[in-house]
Amino acid sequence: MLSFEVLMNTLWSQRYALRTHRMQSSMVRELLKLIDRPGLISFAGGLPAPEVFPVEEFRAAADRVLSEHGAQALQYSTTEGYPKLRELLARHMARYGIVVAPDNVLVTQSSQQALDLIGKVFLNSGDRIAVERPTYLGALQAWNAYQAEYIGIPIDDEGMKMEDLEPALRSGPKFLYALPNFQNPSGVTLSLERRRKLVELADHYGVPIIEDDPYGQLRFAGEHLPPLAALDALARREKAYSGNVIYISTFSKTLAPGLRLGWIVAPTEVLRRLVLAKQGSDLHTGTLVQMIAYEVAKDGFLDRHVKHIRAVYRERRDAILEALKRHMPPGVRWTTPEGGLFIWAVLPEDIDTAALLPEAVEHGVAFVPGTAFFDDGSGRNTMRLNFSFMPPEKISEGIGRLAAVISRFAAEHHLSPPAGA
Amino acid sequence: MLSFEVLMNTLWSQRYALRTHRMQSSMVRELLKLIDRPGLISFAGGLPAPEVFPVEEFRAAADRVLSEHGAQALQYSTTEGYPKLRELLARHMARYGIVVAPDNVLVTQSSQQALDLIGKVFLNSGDRIAVERPTYLGALQAWNAYQAEYIGIPIDDEGMKMEDLEPALRSGPKFLYALPNFQNPSGVTLSLERRRKLVELADHYGVPIIEDDPYGQLRFAGEHLPPLAALDALARREKAYSGNVIYISTFSKTLAPGLRLGWIVAPTEVLRRLVLAKQGSDLHTGTLVQMIAYEVAKDGFLDRHVKHIRAVYRERRDAILEALKRHMPPGVRWTTPEGGLFIWAVLPEDIDTAALLPEAVEHGVAFVPGTAFFDDGSGRNTMRLNFSFMPPEKISEGIGRLAAVISRFAAEHHLSPPAGA
Repeated sequence: MLSFEVLMNTLWSQRYALRTHRMQSSMVRELLKLIDRPGLISFAGGLPAPEVFPVEEFRAAADRVLSEHGAQALQYSTTEGYPKLRELLARHMARYGIVVAPDNVLVTQSSQQALDLIGKVFLNSGDRIAVERPTYLGALQAWNAYQAEYIGIPIDDEGMKMEDLEPALRSGPKFLYALPNFQNPSGVTLSLERRRKLVELADHYGVPIIEDDPYGQLRFAGEHLPPLAALDALARREKAYSGNVIYISTFSKTLAPGLRLGWIVAPTEVLRRLVLAKQGSDLHTGTLVQMIAYEVAKDGFLDRHVKHIRAVYRERRDAILEALKRHMPPGVRWTTPEGGLFIWAVLPEDIDTAALLPEAVEHGVAFVPGTAFFDDGSGRNTMRLNFSFMPPEKISEGIGRLAAVISRFAAEHHLSPPAGA
Repeated sequence: MLSFEVLMNTLWSQRYALRTHRMQSSMVRELLKLIDRPGLISFAGGLPAPEVFPVEEFRAAADRVLSEHGAQALQYSTTEGYPKLRELLARHMARYGIVVAPDNVLVTQSSQQALDLIGKVFLNSGDRIAVERPTYLGALQAWNAYQAEYIGIPIDDEGMKMEDLEPALRSGPKFLYALPNFQNPSGVTLSLERRRKLVELADHYGVPIIEDDPYGQLRFAGEHLPPLAALDALARREKAYSGNVIYISTFSKTLAPGLRLGWIVAPTEVLRRLVLAKQGSDLHTGTLVQMIAYEVAKDGFLDRHVKHIRAVYRERRDAILEALKRHMPPGVRWTTPEGGLFIWAVLPEDIDTAALLPEAVEHGVAFVPGTAFFDDGSGRNTMRLNFSFMPPEKISEGIGRLAAVISRFAAEHHLSPPAGA
């Protein structure tokens, strides 16, 4: 009956003109399916280390919530979020220099939903968004659904290049999207000087900033830099949070991604619109999971736990940096992230990492080809490497395999010896 | 500093042209905030009875999941949903006559997200949707965000009127949205004869059907009727699920709404598009909550539990019907639902229930004015009454209060005595 099924399925697309032509399947998601393959060492995902999940704390918290507040935890609740969690998040934000009231906080179904709701509230078909080049794939996915266009701002080791930022802002994008800390995919951090300049220019040109900060707490080297939201608020000297920055973050990298819990911080008028959009999207985030997360995070556990994660990830980053240095052939360059989960590698120009990937998988190692993160499809000689998921010894072995595949690939394809190594 | 905040907030709307002009705040959501008011008897919400939540089963399931599969439950998972839950749902559907494979099932963040994803995949600005008149408010909310227009099909005690259905389908809407069982808001069920006719006509005119069935299992009187999805599949005699109906349902009314767990059943090609849309919306539904729900629902618990809910709701429906009969002044009519959570009341034509509501709240009783459920803003003399949330004695007292308010309102506003009572 398959042929009939195919026929009918084709009918659905033809007859009903489904509106998804620009919603491509995420390569990252497809690659996630590979990580279960026996023996494969994957740098492709963005998975936190499962060893650091506070499983016992979650078990105890779930037990407390369901024993003491069972009926409340299983019932509908408000769109804005569990009040105690909003208060906790407001206090949490304040420690990072973002002074807000609980009324400025909307709990979301992970920061991916935050990106989607922002698209729903802001974007009309054809609107342009200024993004880092490369940028977070999930943001492009979220906004492609609203038929957005992009203006890419190239980055270097200090983040967005300022000479490209100003013309991008001047051209009037709907908003600018930035990941200032240990950016996904590049691992690069926006310098303090550029943060100040960005906030000033965005205000000057009347372009709101979406600051996406999933990794900010996971700094294991260098000095903490103030979020754009804090710099913007500082410049305004207002009591209420009412500036030019919408800040989003998540528990995915600090507690657990399986919760799907994130949040948006925004001026009250913007938040009200985001709440309306969320009502239509899923009514509210799960009551049970919000109450459990609050129960785990409260009383300082979150901050203590983050210190533990930092130590684990620092060791893994050191392992990948060392392995890269030891194994990689000349002509391969990479970033040196001070936090987060990712390293970015640039190969000799004539190596197409998308063509390299199948060979790599065949030899037991995976990565994400960099083009997926470019709004304009460039970056064909780049790749993203995750270092959070595996223990150091596996990381070393995997980088060894990858280096061998790159060398062999270059030789087999008669590529010119890398220049300027 | 409030004035400055207001100024800045206004700037956000003016400068950044937020795209939410049609996303009005849900009256139902706003009214939910009233139910905590001491002494108020509210028929306004759509809340399940908290007494029937299987709290202890959830506590035990959470404990098992986190003890035995903690790292898996807290990690990222696939967009399609937890495989064991998809299998359970496919088996569950089969018992209601909808024969599908797990690959036809997408787990969603409640059925509200199912509506949103359908909007994202199908709708372009200005597309028309055929809906029952009145229809579910949350669906209008979800699709208003995509700038949909509506074609209303009036209903009577057997659901959509067939003489209005055919012209609506002939006019080429993007899809038809139907709640065949104990419809929200009216409590009305689409008769078998009309189900057959609807499936046939929709196929004839090439209009897909979205069948929303949150209450189908909660029938406490009369005979179970086959879902539109089953009738459509029957007519096609195919092995694979590949017809004209997308079916959506939820655990909100059978297990607990605080989970935010629903699902979509669709032909594989359509499901693939919905999965892509969900990737961009929130990546996936929470792993922990899916695993807990599976652990609770498996081994026949769901079916046993639903029988218990039916008994409780039957008693409450009987209580509200009796109270309406005893207390209501002549000229007020209401439906007699055979399942679900809602009764629909029609008042004399010159009573505007939106104007009545503040007086009702003042006298300690609340309801939802019916206009919120009409795509064209009609229905000003109608109201929705929920009977699932409160015990019978409270229901009787509340209906007594409401009847008194209606009589007083009619007298005070010198309304003509109701005709044809």
